[in-house]
Amino acid sequence: MVSKSQLKLITSLQQKKYRDKTGLFIAEGPKVIAEFITSGLRLHSLFASEEIGLSVFSEAVSEKELQKLSCLKTANKALAVFEIPKKTMPTSEGLIVALDAVRDPGNLGTIIRLCDWFGITQLVCSMDTADCYNPKVVQATMGSIARVHVEYVDLSEFLETSGLPIYGGVMNGSSIYDESLPQDAIIVLGNEANGISEDIQKKITHHVTIPQFGKIKETESLNVATATAILLSEFKRSTEK
Amino acid sequence: MVSKSQLKLITSLQQKKYRDKTGLFIAEGPKVIAEFITSGLRLHSLFASEEIGLSVFSEAVSEKELQKLSCLKTANKALAVFEIPKKTMPTSEGLIVALDAVRDPGNLGTIIRLCDWFGITQLVCSMDTADCYNPKVVQATMGSIARVHVEYVDLSEFLETSGLPIYGGVMNGSSIYDESLPQDAIIVLGNEANGISEDIQKKITHHVTIPQFGKIKETESLNVATATAILLSEFKRSTEK
Repeated sequence: MVSKSQLKLITSLQQKKYRDKTGLFIAEGPKVIAEFITSGLRLHSLFASEEIGLSVFSEAVSEKELQKLSCLKTANKALAVFEIPKKTMPTSEGLIVALDAVRDPGNLGTIIRLCDWFGITQLVCSMDTADCYNPKVVQATMGSIARVHVEYVDLSEFLETSGLPIYGGVMNGSSIYDESLPQDAIIVLGNEANGISEDIQKKITHHVTIPQFGKIKETESLNVATATAILLSEFKRSTEK
Repeated sequence: MVSKSQLKLITSLQQKKYRDKTGLFIAEGPKVIAEFITSGLRLHSLFASEEIGLSVFSEAVSEKELQKLSCLKTANKALAVFEIPKKTMPTSEGLIVALDAVRDPGNLGTIIRLCDWFGITQLVCSMDTADCYNPKVVQATMGSIARVHVEYVDLSEFLETSGLPIYGGVMNGSSIYDESLPQDAIIVLGNEANGISEDIQKKITHHVTIPQFGKIKETESLNVATATAILLSEFKRSTEK
């Protein structure tokens, strides 16, 4: 049975305002929930459909009740509420991805997944980047958000004081294929429509571009998530393979 | 003014059944429409909001009327109906991307965009791959579908008779970074959940994998569109940069 107050709390967590207020977020589906528990995130509450009989820790709910709680079109057997981990300051070592105003939750989710794939544990976001605890982002990462630390900072200040080489994905930079890439660096990706903002551009030490082989107009760009995929692959291939 | 029969035709084109029946598809937004016209696609009809005054060839419609026709949450100034180009048989030369049952329209759109970026003009799809004239795909390609020939074929037969080396993106293949890649090849990507089907697996001559550097379980995979991004970048980097 889901109480009225539980229903109210859980549906409120679809909004950033209430996630900020309560320090809680939602995850759905047994696989994602299991990954979060394994990674040490603190579980607040768990609702599982009767059929999967998850554990003594979960409240058994009917499919219908679960659907009421869910952000998904079709609820996926279990829904959990977790505590948002405490803010930690990003360190300036290793390979770091930084996002400047990436707004689309799907793109952010894919980028978190890519960081996890390529063993990057620090993702630094400008304050106006999409919220990583948005349910759409949590689902798109398929559990990867449990292993990638996402921090929201004054990006300009962070870059200023990092001491690392700063690579920015831009339109008219040097070909990423021709660069001699370092193991420790920050890779900056910009907003879906406007790219990297003027203020952040000034902090970039290496302007890099993914060469185009087709006949797209020069003013066009790749989607930010696919560009991130290619840049991360290049960094890892040339420094660690 | 949009007539009742126009409204009926245009909304019906959101369904594959009616696209097949009429040989027509929808494109929205002045930029995408302009790219299609430039690329020589045959325009069937054009509706543009009064404010942009597109040309004598368009029917002026109000914002409200345009929204009724549109598949987008917010209609984008113009909507056009084009003729679906005639089927042509794919040739077996150059670099070709082949998709085995890729179902998500967003993924297909992103892959078409990537083909365009990397100068790949042939995308060969199994019959059960998403329809490239689905409005969601057309929008996601941002006009790239005008420059990439997408053909639906019996994929097994096509691979069988192609005579080209066939690279398949799989879980436990050789690292793509260690392969000596050819200029002419077919790159096969599989279904979002199940990868490449058994029948198509048999046709693959080179099993390749994008190495994982993180701590994701070995059974996990990258999203098919991001995997395509990395594989295409590798092929182009090592053969044409």
